[in-house]
Amino acid sequence: MRLARFSYNDSVGYAVLDGETLKVLDGHPIGELAYTGVEIKLSDARLLAPIIPSKIICIGKNYLEHALEMGTPAPKEPLFFFKPTTAIIGPGDPIRIPSQSDDIQHESELAVVISRLCKDVPVERVKDVILGYTCANDVTARDLQQKDGQWARSKGFDTFCPLGPWIETEIADIQNVDIECRLNGKVTQKDSTASMIHSVATAVSWVSQHLTLLPGDVILTGSPAGISRMNPGDIVEVEIEGIGILSNPVVKDV
Amino acid sequence: MRLARFSYNDSVGYAVLDGETLKVLDGHPIGELAYTGVEIKLSDARLLAPIIPSKIICIGKNYLEHALEMGTPAPKEPLFFFKPTTAIIGPGDPIRIPSQSDDIQHESELAVVISRLCKDVPVERVKDVILGYTCANDVTARDLQQKDGQWARSKGFDTFCPLGPWIETEIADIQNVDIECRLNGKVTQKDSTASMIHSVATAVSWVSQHLTLLPGDVILTGSPAGISRMNPGDIVEVEIEGIGILSNPVVKDV
Repeated sequence: MRLARFSYNDSVGYAVLDGETLKVLDGHPIGELAYTGVEIKLSDARLLAPIIPSKIICIGKNYLEHALEMGTPAPKEPLFFFKPTTAIIGPGDPIRIPSQSDDIQHESELAVVISRLCKDVPVERVKDVILGYTCANDVTARDLQQKDGQWARSKGFDTFCPLGPWIETEIADIQNVDIECRLNGKVTQKDSTASMIHSVATAVSWVSQHLTLLPGDVILTGSPAGISRMNPGDIVEVEIEGIGILSNPVVKDV
Repeated sequence: MRLARFSYNDSVGYAVLDGETLKVLDGHPIGELAYTGVEIKLSDARLLAPIIPSKIICIGKNYLEHALEMGTPAPKEPLFFFKPTTAIIGPGDPIRIPSQSDDIQHESELAVVISRLCKDVPVERVKDVILGYTCANDVTARDLQQKDGQWARSKGFDTFCPLGPWIETEIADIQNVDIECRLNGKVTQKDSTASMIHSVATAVSWVSQHLTLLPGDVILTGSPAGISRMNPGDIVEVEIEGIGILSNPVVKDV
């Protein structure tokens, strides 16, 4: 099932996307779904980031080849950091290159959306706290990341966390889907979630051993190798098999 | 004026604290205040963390002596990181020592509470976006901070961000107030905000040049020297002149 968030005329809501039809929900898409009976054509609506979380937790260096291209060993335990929720944008929204950086790069990532308040979730029960999956772009000002040491600033600018296009709740084997990034149509990143060092279940369990997860919270699971610089005028697409394509233009902030 | 958040019987609300009386507000304490007319004795209520922000931004190494005790130079520009909002607790709530760390330390800090949505705030206009100030404890698992490199985990555990006891909106000169930390009554940190490397105005302006601040967002402005280990059974107090005392017991998480 695909859960989408949309705007239509002056209203914003959640819906189940059935083919090309948004079946509008009464309230939010977590827990038992209630339908309003209203249906909207997908082409008449604008898709928004599919969830507004209380927090975004990101797993760093979770694909070996990416850790190597960063010139660092892969961490033995999952390493996490936070992005602020003000960084979130939706499908089609522009990624804005701030004046402070000369090297903005994309990182295509599988994002996990949490379904319930939870803490200390055992690996084998992680499936019970996942609502579904969406595509994410962990946009990073690489020059500032190297300069600061801490990653908060370089990954925390407004527009640096595109999410979407929707949340897919049913994926047969989340550790065996292709993930790809394209910059102006040219493939820059291509791998499979099978290459993750720490699986989705391990990463979610690990994070939950440190802090309480709330419904809607988002966990980014790391980027494959092939991170590349983006320039104004570019179009960046993150495609994950079984989910869809998250496409965003890149503009210079003014 | 002191803005407090409280629970009383089964309800939670905001109030203006006038002496020992909570004058209950209708709605939140940002913008024009509306009073319900209800008054509650402070001693009959329980104070909660005075604000629930969308995000917590922390300035690192903002007192020279603290940077030196950490064995690092002070950063030339403000260095910031994030704490998750699930780390917030209120006055009197226990700080829980997690099983993953053997070295939990306190960091007493002045916290700034933002009053309005803002971005790119010039230094001279920062006063227009500040609601007030409260005490904070940037609790840190020092061993994990050193091990991880990134600070998100070591500063992100549940209960690692005590805030309170209330928001003071009127302080004549925020760069000239004493800040002190006591562990079981013994002074461990003692300094003045005059020792900050980057002033409140500089720090808030700097953060706002990178990301949008929302009403209620909290910015921690760094810890003086004297960070010390806390153990189960300890009582830690952060006192800031003109604001008040934030006191929390320390317990072992089970």
